[in-house]
Amino acid sequence: MVRELTVDLGTRSYPIYIGEGLLADIAAYFEKHGISKASPLLVVTDGHVAKHHLKLVMDRLAEGGYTAVSYTVAAGEKSKSLAVLEDIVGACLQAGLDRKSTVVALGGGVVGDLAGFVAASYMRGIRFVQIPTTILAHDSSVGGKVAVNHPLAKNIIGAFHQPEMVLYDTSTLLTLPDRDVRAGLSEMIKHGLIWDAEFTAWCEANAEKLIGLDPEALQYGLYNGCAVKAAVVSQDERENDLRAILNLGHTIGHALEAVAGYNELQHGEAISIGMVGAAMLSVRMGNPVEILTVTERIFKKFGLPTRIPAHFDTEAIMRAMMHDKKFSEGRMVYIIPTAIGKVEINKNVSAEWVREIVDRLKRED
Amino acid sequence: MVRELTVDLGTRSYPIYIGEGLLADIAAYFEKHGISKASPLLVVTDGHVAKHHLKLVMDRLAEGGYTAVSYTVAAGEKSKSLAVLEDIVGACLQAGLDRKSTVVALGGGVVGDLAGFVAASYMRGIRFVQIPTTILAHDSSVGGKVAVNHPLAKNIIGAFHQPEMVLYDTSTLLTLPDRDVRAGLSEMIKHGLIWDAEFTAWCEANAEKLIGLDPEALQYGLYNGCAVKAAVVSQDERENDLRAILNLGHTIGHALEAVAGYNELQHGEAISIGMVGAAMLSVRMGNPVEILTVTERIFKKFGLPTRIPAHFDTEAIMRAMMHDKKFSEGRMVYIIPTAIGKVEINKNVSAEWVREIVDRLKRED
Repeated sequence: MVRELTVDLGTRSYPIYIGEGLLADIAAYFEKHGISKASPLLVVTDGHVAKHHLKLVMDRLAEGGYTAVSYTVAAGEKSKSLAVLEDIVGACLQAGLDRKSTVVALGGGVVGDLAGFVAASYMRGIRFVQIPTTILAHDSSVGGKVAVNHPLAKNIIGAFHQPEMVLYDTSTLLTLPDRDVRAGLSEMIKHGLIWDAEFTAWCEANAEKLIGLDPEALQYGLYNGCAVKAAVVSQDERENDLRAILNLGHTIGHALEAVAGYNELQHGEAISIGMVGAAMLSVRMGNPVEILTVTERIFKKFGLPTRIPAHFDTEAIMRAMMHDKKFSEGRMVYIIPTAIGKVEINKNVSAEWVREIVDRLKRED
Repeated sequence: MVRELTVDLGTRSYPIYIGEGLLADIAAYFEKHGISKASPLLVVTDGHVAKHHLKLVMDRLAEGGYTAVSYTVAAGEKSKSLAVLEDIVGACLQAGLDRKSTVVALGGGVVGDLAGFVAASYMRGIRFVQIPTTILAHDSSVGGKVAVNHPLAKNIIGAFHQPEMVLYDTSTLLTLPDRDVRAGLSEMIKHGLIWDAEFTAWCEANAEKLIGLDPEALQYGLYNGCAVKAAVVSQDERENDLRAILNLGHTIGHALEAVAGYNELQHGEAISIGMVGAAMLSVRMGNPVEILTVTERIFKKFGLPTRIPAHFDTEAIMRAMMHDKKFSEGRMVYIIPTAIGKVEINKNVSAEWVREIVDRLKRED
């Protein structure tokens, strides 16, 4: 069974397909969506993903009458650089990619962001297809945010560039390490917490199936996670307002990632701590305590961290948060849950309260 | 007197101001167009322009209550690289530019393209003001095409990113070398040839005044050149069709620049030869011979070249043209004048005819 949903953006609308074994039919999907056979394609992937899935993709594209070349980057955040982008553009030129060509991102968030920015900037923008191969990427592959890093800041050089489609073959998830699975589910839970109480309850009830990669549960969960993302992005493509709610847990989360040097904590782990922090802030502001107890309970059920490791320095975390664009004059913009399945954008959170929460998150529970 | 016109692009519409001494009022123009004083600005310029105009700009911005930092690149095409872009983004981060900040391009085409792509990609796009300081840049500063070069190809990494406004202070043109003046006027003449027979006749009649930088003639000419560009871009922002007419003379012109290694011929000189070539092709296709005689006469009047220097290799020129995206299966897309002030996009020009014209352009007249 293939689930399908649409990201509704007027003339830039596109479908997300979710199902097992979709990659075997990649050429048919490309044809259906008017990807040109007259112009060469470039498939960008990383060393890990290439081992498992690149041959299938290249073979099926060739069988379907497509001319495709591939470019494999080293796995990991370091590949999201302008130097790698310049090298990929060289490969595009040598392969003869033209204005009608398409860049295909086969991989997780790093590959999607990098290949997406290649597609956004090559010849001032060519077409782009996202093929996420991680659970985490159900988030990053939808919504058109693409970027590379600068030595001084993550994701600071980029664009909004919507894909032609997202092709989510859930069989690619079966080879993921357990830690990546849990960390990836963190964004799925976030999509419930910001938008859909019923889906949140479903996630909690189906934690074991999700962690165990039960195909039916996984597809249903990814479908609903993508649906929340699609609904939010449809209403605010360029993050003027509403789209900020997708950052629930991310202010503390990004600061933890920065302090940990992007090694000790995975993104999904950092934001699960951040979402518990946001729930604490919410209760501190007078909202029902249930918000915190449910939030903590869910993340524990998924084996995700809910506390900051004790050796993290509070001041370093606070400093990292102050570098965040959302901070000014002792007040911060914060996404605050007001109920399970509901959040508000609060532009007036005191830095002192945040410090208090960071301290509390560092104490053992 | 300040002339004003609008590039009509719906919510992305913007004004072009043309007049003498506008830079002294830069802060007032910024204020009028809602450029934020709460967020720092970055002014990008090059070594030549900095000497003449940077102090005035920085002083007047500061007096007007703006916080601005400047970044000066080396003059010349080499600065249009991803490496320089990365360095400028570092300067943006250190100066604390945020989503409400503005990048100001103070210079010619290189500075405009480079600073524009910084503005297009920093934090996925911030605001941008063009302050052209060459005649040639009356073309490149209007229309939102921004880019950097790749070692293998010019302008291949970029975006469409429209400025908030174009501020054209014609007093900055008074220090231009005579050769740059003539070469810059070549794009002005082009705007007449593709769109406006009356303006073409005016250019020819006022050649001496224009070359002599007569203020009134210069402002009238730049206003009309920008007006043609604005009209075309308004109808086809992303070069799906009509916008291609702006490439009159550019297929041969780009090939000549490539073969000359971007040294021997200035861009404006290369396209003046290219426009004579396009007129020859037109006559070859059965259009009135007057198209060629008028085209040649005008460029000669401006002291611009109308023939390819004899030592250029025809085969090298043909090869360079084949690399052009507009070539396939022995046929080329060509902008062909059908009368003075009128062109057509011809997608079926035989490569053999083009070779014949290139040969003819190499013979002495």
